[in-house]
Amino acid sequence: MIKNDLYLKALRGETVERPPVWMMRQAGRFLPEFRAMRDDYDFFTRCRTPELASEITMMPIRRFPLDAAILFSDILVVPQAMGMDFEMREGVGPWLENPIRTLEDVQNIEVPDVNETLGYVFDAIELTLLKLDNDIPLIGFAGSPWTILCYCVEGKGSKAWDVAKSFCFKNPEAAHLLLQKITETTIAYLKRKVEKGVSAVQVFDSWGGSLSPEDYQIFSWPYINQIVEALAPLTHVVVFGKGCWFALEEMTLSKASALGVDWTVRPELARMLTNHTMTLQGNFDPNRLNSSPETITKMVTEMINRFGKDRYIANLGHGILPNIPLENAEAFIRAVVDWKPN
Amino acid sequence: MIKNDLYLKALRGETVERPPVWMMRQAGRFLPEFRAMRDDYDFFTRCRTPELASEITMMPIRRFPLDAAILFSDILVVPQAMGMDFEMREGVGPWLENPIRTLEDVQNIEVPDVNETLGYVFDAIELTLLKLDNDIPLIGFAGSPWTILCYCVEGKGSKAWDVAKSFCFKNPEAAHLLLQKITETTIAYLKRKVEKGVSAVQVFDSWGGSLSPEDYQIFSWPYINQIVEALAPLTHVVVFGKGCWFALEEMTLSKASALGVDWTVRPELARMLTNHTMTLQGNFDPNRLNSSPETITKMVTEMINRFGKDRYIANLGHGILPNIPLENAEAFIRAVVDWKPN
Repeated sequence: MIKNDLYLKALRGETVERPPVWMMRQAGRFLPEFRAMRDDYDFFTRCRTPELASEITMMPIRRFPLDAAILFSDILVVPQAMGMDFEMREGVGPWLENPIRTLEDVQNIEVPDVNETLGYVFDAIELTLLKLDNDIPLIGFAGSPWTILCYCVEGKGSKAWDVAKSFCFKNPEAAHLLLQKITETTIAYLKRKVEKGVSAVQVFDSWGGSLSPEDYQIFSWPYINQIVEALAPLTHVVVFGKGCWFALEEMTLSKASALGVDWTVRPELARMLTNHTMTLQGNFDPNRLNSSPETITKMVTEMINRFGKDRYIANLGHGILPNIPLENAEAFIRAVVDWKPN
Repeated sequence: MIKNDLYLKALRGETVERPPVWMMRQAGRFLPEFRAMRDDYDFFTRCRTPELASEITMMPIRRFPLDAAILFSDILVVPQAMGMDFEMREGVGPWLENPIRTLEDVQNIEVPDVNETLGYVFDAIELTLLKLDNDIPLIGFAGSPWTILCYCVEGKGSKAWDVAKSFCFKNPEAAHLLLQKITETTIAYLKRKVEKGVSAVQVFDSWGGSLSPEDYQIFSWPYINQIVEALAPLTHVVVFGKGCWFALEEMTLSKASALGVDWTVRPELARMLTNHTMTLQGNFDPNRLNSSPETITKMVTEMINRFGKDRYIANLGHGILPNIPLENAEAFIRAVVDWKPN
């Protein structure tokens, strides 16, 4: 049994004294102890070394009173397991030397055995659970098939994902084949995470917001929903689509336990679009952690009051930024932990 | 009197036989004759040379049955006039060697005399109106103060405008001073365009969607609204905020004649959020012009049927992409021109 189960209570829709809190990318670059590791190990070495990944996962937990841990990893380990050799290039970000551009490229991709290719993630879960000692839940995650396709086709980050989108609009058959292969790999990957003991899984659709509502229902949501259908009988599934406010109504009809929202959606509208029944997660603008701790405290309190304390997980609307001062991140977390009803 | 006044009729909310059509960035890189000029003149030389700017403005008009022309220029000519030396760097885009980073930087900026600094734009309008010979209206444009601030502070394009946003959140006083100076310059600039004979002005808030609804009402909308208030007695003002669906209700209460919407907003929702009273412009995903001409024709027809033919200006949801085939752009335009009620 997990001692602090606030996060799980929120996922189950139970009444709580205050909302749980965690921060997307909390095990990341804003922590000085994370940055200090950079000189010794490159990014994907840290993902692939269970001892390092579990240590990084624990870093924010040792500093702050967080209600959930999220396994340090990257969404690109899935396409790596499928044979796409993503690197992390300094000043560039993710980089794939030979991006997917044709139906033949897609046909050559295999759905891998995740135990062979991603065993290091499952080992990291095992180590992390020992360190967590049942104090708080551990979250596992994966990218959405659409978001993974974006990187595989574009070969690097992008503002508008025009290469990826034009690939899909010109070669829908190839796009759907690639999306299905990613989906199958992701389902096997997340199922194994659950077997290893994570308490919930979150699917990140970071670039779904580049699609129209109609194209989202063609190229993104059906594949996310396959994942939700496959995992929901086993664990809680949280879906976070950045910029995907237009799909919240469809998402609400799914078996997801919670939906993430970004900071462009007013809490009241998010509640309305999700029928006031869904657990919601979010949605503080990560850049607003540049404000003073006093302003942050005030804004977080208002955010909770607007979402309501129940069926709500306090979080950012996207990952924490690298340059945020520790005391500002702490002000965010403290404001949730110390929240009291009016 | 302008012979084809469909665009103006739509702005006035009058009944039309079919919606007018133009395409954002229609005078741009998708045209081979525009690309051919690149070897002879760099980007800002083309903006600053009235004969070239007016020729570029006419290029799409000579090819396609468009219902409006938009003066070839760039939103960054305004900060250039204010003393910020933006260049257009190959493979990089806009580039400012010394971005604005402090209150002192902002205090050093002057609100310029637009006649002295932007005379080349007004001369280009004069030349273009001669070439248009009253066939169709000419649109003038400017960037929103928020969007211009983004470039001035960031110094280049960005995915999330984190440097610009953190500048505003840490130095709100400096941000508001800069926004006010940009606003005053923009009002003088657009007023002079109207005096020179443009039939409408459009304000592009390309990066307003990076802000939360609350921050949009602090850092973007009040400044756009100053422009609307100043210009609405003189001409039609169209406001296009990319990613700013969350502000459509506030925008509807303003004196704007029309609002642009991007492709993430369903037509029915855009109508609802604007009280069914506003003229709307948009919202075809520019990347969907990569589909076949047959698919484009089908999708455009559906778009018009969903928005309705009146109080509607058919357009893309952002600028046309550089690699779009001419026949696909033509399919978009033809589908509007040939549209018939069911």
